[in-house]
Amino acid sequence: MSKSNDVSMSVIRRLPRYYRFLGKLIKKNITKISSKKLSEMLGITASQIRQDLHCFGEFGQQGYGYNVNDLHKEIEDILGISHQTNAILIGAGNLGKAILSYMNFNDKGFNLVGVFDQNIDIIGKNIAGYDVLNISDLKSFCEKISPKVAILCIPQESAENLAQPLVDLGIKGFWNFSHYDFAINFDNVIVENVHISDSLLTLCFQMGKLNQ
Amino acid sequence: MSKSNDVSMSVIRRLPRYYRFLGKLIKKNITKISSKKLSEMLGITASQIRQDLHCFGEFGQQGYGYNVNDLHKEIEDILGISHQTNAILIGAGNLGKAILSYMNFNDKGFNLVGVFDQNIDIIGKNIAGYDVLNISDLKSFCEKISPKVAILCIPQESAENLAQPLVDLGIKGFWNFSHYDFAINFDNVIVENVHISDSLLTLCFQMGKLNQ
Repeated sequence: MSKSNDVSMSVIRRLPRYYRFLGKLIKKNITKISSKKLSEMLGITASQIRQDLHCFGEFGQQGYGYNVNDLHKEIEDILGISHQTNAILIGAGNLGKAILSYMNFNDKGFNLVGVFDQNIDIIGKNIAGYDVLNISDLKSFCEKISPKVAILCIPQESAENLAQPLVDLGIKGFWNFSHYDFAINFDNVIVENVHISDSLLTLCFQMGKLNQ
Repeated sequence: MSKSNDVSMSVIRRLPRYYRFLGKLIKKNITKISSKKLSEMLGITASQIRQDLHCFGEFGQQGYGYNVNDLHKEIEDILGISHQTNAILIGAGNLGKAILSYMNFNDKGFNLVGVFDQNIDIIGKNIAGYDVLNISDLKSFCEKISPKVAILCIPQESAENLAQPLVDLGIKGFWNFSHYDFAINFDNVIVENVHISDSLLTLCFQMGKLNQ
């Protein structure tokens, strides 16, 4: 995997998709797949898949295709899922609650160690197995447990206020559901934005084209 | 806007981002912005922004930059937000509930006309102003109201079972939170996928790189 240092983000973004599709094949007890079939399923050319995987080593065999379990495991290793980075979630409102109930963090390489909110009606409640802690305890918590990732399910203004303190407390990566734009003030943290509304606006545009 | 028919998806995907940033500027009472400043804020080169907007017409003025309100309104028109497509949401569990509570659909070009679930504990409840209807009434509802978009907040298997009936009932576009892959069986519907777990896996990979 020594090749992987300069891999482009577009390649990296396709890896979870490969991983997900291979997981589906495993569930269906499919043990091998041709690059042509995989390409059809994914809507990505076989040559693109080969190129992508080639960034990380040699996979598949001419005339045989891919061993599904092996490739799934290899991509799991490339993604680093077994590493289990400690993460905290901030904001246990509707969105935070949904993420907590919906997401299996361990399957995705994260160990969720704390959930925080500032709302006294929510603090102390148990959501999907997590006791919601008071945001005022964030500092002492981080000093003790040293989480590396913060999941932000809070409004833009709160994210803006919390970003620097969180970085100061050792947070190196953000899974950011807020509309706060980290790029303006931080260039030394990893930020993965989930802008759900952008996706809905994209659909809006495409629906409009249908009507023309 | 006659130019816009062949615009690539990557351009289209940047439009909501422009729109969101311009909205922020309006809130801050900023009325004009240079292409250089806009470029810095967005982390996109000024030339890329010019190229993107050029797909839809002429915007901005040499030496002046962009009039924020005008550009915001133009992009709103390009996205077709005022058109208001009728949409239904299926699956009022944790994720569906979060989307209902969190999202302003009208702002994004959609009029949410119905929310459906199959769970008798949820049917009849009011979530964020929407009465949850019985999925068994979906057919008669669609025949009467003719929604064009379905928002799928259901597991993959349910999405797989509902996809064809929904298309038969006149659904032309899906906002798909499930892991069901429409591309395999449908090439005549618009699908906007939100794969939140793929985003978390991408973050997992990037965090792993930090530790190397």
